[in-house]
Order: sequence, then C-alpha cells, then structure tokens
Amino acid sequence: MTQPTFLLAPDSFKESMTAKEVCVAMEAGLRKAFPEASYIHVPMADGGEGTVQSLVDATGGKLLEKEVTGPLGQPVIAKYGIMGDGMTAAIEMASASGIQLVTKETRNPLITSTYGTGELIKECLHRGIKKIIIGIGGSATNDGGTGMAEALGAKFLDAGGNTLPRGGGSLGELATVDISALDARLAEVEIIVACDVTNPLCGPTGASHIFGPQKGASPEMVLKLDASLAHYAAVVNEQLNKDVRDVPGAGAAGGLGAGLLIFTQATLQRGIDIIINYTGLREKLTSANYVLTGEGGMDAQTKFGKTPHGVAKAAKQEGKKVIALAGYIGEGAEVLYEEGIDAIFGIVPGASDLEKLLKEGPKNVERAAENVGRLIKLSC
Amino acid sequence: MTQPTFLLAPDSFKESMTAKEVCVAMEAGLRKAFPEASYIHVPMADGGEGTVQSLVDATGGKLLEKEVTGPLGQPVIAKYGIMGDGMTAAIEMASASGIQLVTKETRNPLITSTYGTGELIKECLHRGIKKIIIGIGGSATNDGGTGMAEALGAKFLDAGGNTLPRGGGSLGELATVDISALDARLAEVEIIVACDVTNPLCGPTGASHIFGPQKGASPEMVLKLDASLAHYAAVVNEQLNKDVRDVPGAGAAGGLGAGLLIFTQATLQRGIDIIINYTGLREKLTSANYVLTGEGGMDAQTKFGKTPHGVAKAAKQEGKKVIALAGYIGEGAEVLYEEGIDAIFGIVPGASDLEKLLKEGPKNVERAAENVGRLIKLSC
Repeated sequence: MTQPTFLLAPDSFKESMTAKEVCVAMEAGLRKAFPEASYIHVPMADGGEGTVQSLVDATGGKLLEKEVTGPLGQPVIAKYGIMGDGMTAAIEMASASGIQLVTKETRNPLITSTYGTGELIKECLHRGIKKIIIGIGGSATNDGGTGMAEALGAKFLDAGGNTLPRGGGSLGELATVDISALDARLAEVEIIVACDVTNPLCGPTGASHIFGPQKGASPEMVLKLDASLAHYAAVVNEQLNKDVRDVPGAGAAGGLGAGLLIFTQATLQRGIDIIINYTGLREKLTSANYVLTGEGGMDAQTKFGKTPHGVAKAAKQEGKKVIALAGYIGEGAEVLYEEGIDAIFGIVPGASDLEKLLKEGPKNVERAAENVGRLIKLSC
Repeated sequence: MTQPTFLLAPDSFKESMTAKEVCVAMEAGLRKAFPEASYIHVPMADGGEGTVQSLVDATGGKLLEKEVTGPLGQPVIAKYGIMGDGMTAAIEMASASGIQLVTKETRNPLITSTYGTGELIKECLHRGIKKIIIGIGGSATNDGGTGMAEALGAKFLDAGGNTLPRGGGSLGELATVDISALDARLAEVEIIVACDVTNPLCGPTGASHIFGPQKGASPEMVLKLDASLAHYAAVVNEQLNKDVRDVPGAGAAGGLGAGLLIFTQATLQRGIDIIINYTGLREKLTSANYVLTGEGGMDAQTKFGKTPHGVAKAAKQEGKKVIALAGYIGEGAEVLYEEGIDAIFGIVPGASDLEKLLKEGPKNVERAAENVGRLIKLSC
C-alpha cells in the first residue's frame, strides 16, 4: 500500500495526558510501523474537562490565566483559551466556578456563585473576542447563572431595592432584575454553550433536584433551591420577557444554562459537535486512511456524546476506519462497534495500580499504537 | 478476502487459564469478527508448568493421577498424562518433586529427593509406555536424580554397604552405585527431557551454586551439595563408565538431568522444540493465515525458549503472520518483533489487581482477540 495517512483525534486521558500528548504518543508508536506515513493531530474534547486545552492545542491558540472570584468568593486563578483565530475564546465554567474548588465540608449550593464565570466572560469582552465557547460541566453552583450575569452588570434586587446576596438560596427574595447596566458588548458576542444534558431549569428533572445533591444540597435545600429558581424564572419572564423554564439544557450547571440564554446571545449545543466544528475535524478527515481516537475510559456511556463516539460518527460519514485506544475498557464498550468504532484496544500492560498507569500513560499509548500499526501493516 | 484460517497456539496463562482454555477464548473472540473462519487449536507449552495439560489437550490424551513420594517423603498426588497415541507419556517432575510441595520453612535440598519422579516413571513402565516426555523445571531437589533412580531399582550404598539416606546431602558418602536391580524396561523406553538450561552438574555454574539457594541452600550447604554431586559423578564415571559432568543441562533440576542421562535412555532437548514436535504444530501451520499465540507474561525473556517465541519462529518459517496476546507485557517485549512476533496486545482492560485479572482471563482474552480480528478484517 502507499503510505497511509493517520488522523489522530483522541480526547485527553484524564489525570494522565492532554489530548495533544495522546496524539504525540500515538504518532510515536505508529511511526515505528509506518515511518513514512502522514500524521494529522486533532486533539479533541467533548465540552467537558480538557476542552479549553484541546481547543487551544488544536487551533494553535494560547492558554491564559485570570484571577476571578471562586464559587465561595475566594480568589481563584482560572484558565481560559484564545483560539488560533484570535477571535474565539474557550472557557470551562468549572475553572472559575467548579465543584473541585470547594471542599466537601464547604459545599453549599445556597451560596455558591457563578460570578467568576461572568468575570471570565467579561475578560473576553475586554480582549475583543467575538465568539465564546463555554463548557459548563462540573459546576459547584445552583444560582441560575445570576452570579455570572452580575459580574457582567446585571442587578438582582429584593423588594426593598437591595442587592441580593449571591447564590441560589436568596433568589426566592428576587423582586427586580435590572439589566440597564449589563455590558453592552454582550450583544455583539456569540456564545456557544457546550451542553450535553437536557434538564429543564426547575421541577423534578431540573437543576436542583438532579444535580443539587452532588453539590451538597440536603433534601430541604433542594426544595428551597428549586422554588427559588422557579421564582427567578417567573420574574425574568415577567420583566425581561424571556421564558427559559422549559428549554432543554436550561438546568445545566445549576441553571447557568438558563442564565446564559437569558443574559447573553447564547445557543446550547452538544459539546462534541462544537469541538468537531472548531477543530475542523471533518475537513481534516477527508485525507485520512485511518482514524485513531480514544479516551481515558471507554464503556457503554461513551456513546452519549463522548469524544470517541463523536469522532467515529464523523469518520464513518467519510467512510474511514476507526480504531480507539483506552486506558480503561468498561462494561458494555462493545456497543461502540455498532457506533462506528471498528476496534478498541486497551493500553494497560498488566496488573497495575491506577497511579502508576496514569504516570506511564504516554509509554502505554505508544506501545499500543505501535502494535495497532504493526497489525495494520501486517494485514495490508 | 476468503475466510481465513486462524491457528491458535498459546501457552497457558499461569494461574488463570490452561492453554486449551486460552484457545477457546481466542476463538470466541475472533469468531465475532470472522464467524465463518476456520480455527485450529494447538494448546502449547514450553516444557515448564502446564506442559502435561497442554500435551494431553493437544493430542486428545488423558490426565491421570498417582500417589507418589514427595520431596520430603510425604505422600503427594502427582498428575501425569498419556498422550493421544496411547504410547507416549508426559511428566512434570515438579508434580512429584517440585518446590511448591515444600514450605519455605522446610526447604532443605540436603534431604529433598526426586524419588517421586522415579515412581511416576515406573508407573509409566507398568502402563507399557514407550516414550516419556519429562519437564524438569521447578524442582525442590539437589540429589542428582539419585532418588528417581532409586525408585527404579538403583541402589546408592556407603562404604559399609548401607543404603544412603535420600537427598543430595548424603552423596559425599557414596561408595557404590548398584544398578543390578534397575528396572530392565528402562532400556526399552525413550525418555525425552525438556531442558532449557545448559548448566553442568557441578562447579560455579552447576546445579548447587546456581539453583541451590532458591531451594533453601545456605552458602555452606551449597558447598557441601556441590562437592557431593562431584563425588557422585566421579563414582558413576568410575563404576558405570558414564561421564555426565560436563554435559550441558546435566545440572538442571538439581542434577536430575544428569540422573536421567545416567540411568535411562534419555536425551535433553529444548522444551519448546519437544512440544512443537509432539503437537504437530508445523504441519498444522501450513493451512493457517494467521497464528495467534500468547502467554500470561511476555517480556525480553520470552525469546529464551518460551512458547510465543517458539511458535513465532516455526510460523515464520512458513511465512505466517503472528500475533500475540499477553496478560502482562513487560520490559523489553519489543525485542520480540525481531523474533517473528508481528504484534503484541495486552488483554488487561484497565487498572486492576492481579487476583481479579486472573479470574477474568477468558473474558479479557476474548475481548482482545475480537478486536484483533476486527482490526484484521478492517485492513483486509
């Protein structure tokens, strides 16, 4: 065969390698079998952790830091990215307002706030950004995105005209939403929210009931938060004429989905679709003979919007061969064969604890990729 | 492509699966990709643990048990096999005289004896066996094979004409080797010893110095055992006119190699070569398109007479494609690419402890084999 082209489009391997590092290890392995082949790196993500890094890496952009207000008011250094075009930014809300920024003991969704996420958006506005991709997984908050909006100039007032304390717990007292000082530049910026959940803002499948408990909400707190968000949505509907209550995804990230829809020019999209779009995966696929993808863990859940599944779907539309590598192959991974992934190989060399495997990720990806290459070559 | 033929020739995966069970799991996996393919099972071994089982499985023979005398005189139920031809037996000396039959506390190569191995040979003679394959790895003994010979009628006497106590520690007192009552049927039986070491009987690279310590010999015991074996060899040379001292492999299994050469019609051969011969691997290879082999662990040492290496060498002589599966891929396994193994895949799905992996061996072999099949199919 003529020298093949390999397109390498893995997600990150969580706690072990960025997607770009996985690409490098994959190429190193494959090159031992195909030294003259062409390799196209497309570090991927699905809107979750690693999305900013992968978008920066995939587009030749840069990673920046900004001190913002954490979910409990504490200072936090948040990372965000400017993509290679210089006009598009990528934010992970968790970097500013994530659950990992709060200890188990201090989790309290009555008071945690998305204010820091708003500060990141504001920083993007300062930098003249025209489009922002926001990944909203992993939040510590249940404030309906009010903190975010406040950082951008909105005011949330009680019946006495006083600014409400931050956090979802106080929204039951909301009387007035004042957007007169909302940052005018927001109207010029397209915001694309990477959102894979379809939960509405309120009710039994809403933000508070479904995601509140994992953020530290007791059953009583869940009821209070749900009622507060319902009141907030009703006030917004009345005063701003925006009804987001039943929009699928409004309940994502403690209602940040709703907040972005209310206060910004936002659309919600599946994370993997956004990344496929912004990495130019489809165009890059056309010249590939083989597509290698992968993720730290793959199982039956992978087909619900995870990177290897999205890459495989896109690749199959172009009739490409798709091979996945995984650090962990879990129950039901075989369903992925029907979803466009032709073969899945584990990278783990033997009985080992997780810590060691995380450390040896690049070596193990390289070995597995080399042997995939060797087997492909053998069968040519 | 027309439906391929897969030849499945793995070793056992120690403590997890017999070689036959590995064959079954490999076929189950490959069949998902190639339901109409042909599958040839050749359960393999290399003369070490699992050799009897694999030879029995590969030839359609039977596994038998016999109570014999263990290394410390205790009763032991030893397994041995009669191959499908009904005329060839297979014995692992470790089954009767192995290190695993002695606790760490009671290891004492001064007194451990190969008597039980002799009893197994005698049982084969009773059964009219014409050829015996003996694997001699894993011994607890350092007796020069005198215990084995005694079980078959030889007498080892001191200067006063008294029978010596069993074990290598008493051989310094040896004055007379009396083979007048040695079982006459031994002259009619071909014994093929699976022996991968080239150590001589005595001296710095001999049985006592190299293998004594792992059997529990202190430095003083090593010196005594080495001197005893040297005296034994000198007496044998003088009285029986057989000089085995410098024969490579005479020092295997505490000198059982020497004992078999002295008292039986034995030849020493590389274990893997014997198994390749008796399983008919070479003839079966001719119709195969792909050869799958494997072993519980594979690393740089695999090229020294281990099954995957032997299978690969034989397969490459026929120009076949060789893929290995391993439960553990260790340091330096990549040297095997130069030795005829085209690709090696681990079967382990993720971070896991050994106990769980040993239990889930068949499932993991099946998955890995399926994906190897899927990748082969993809590349066809």
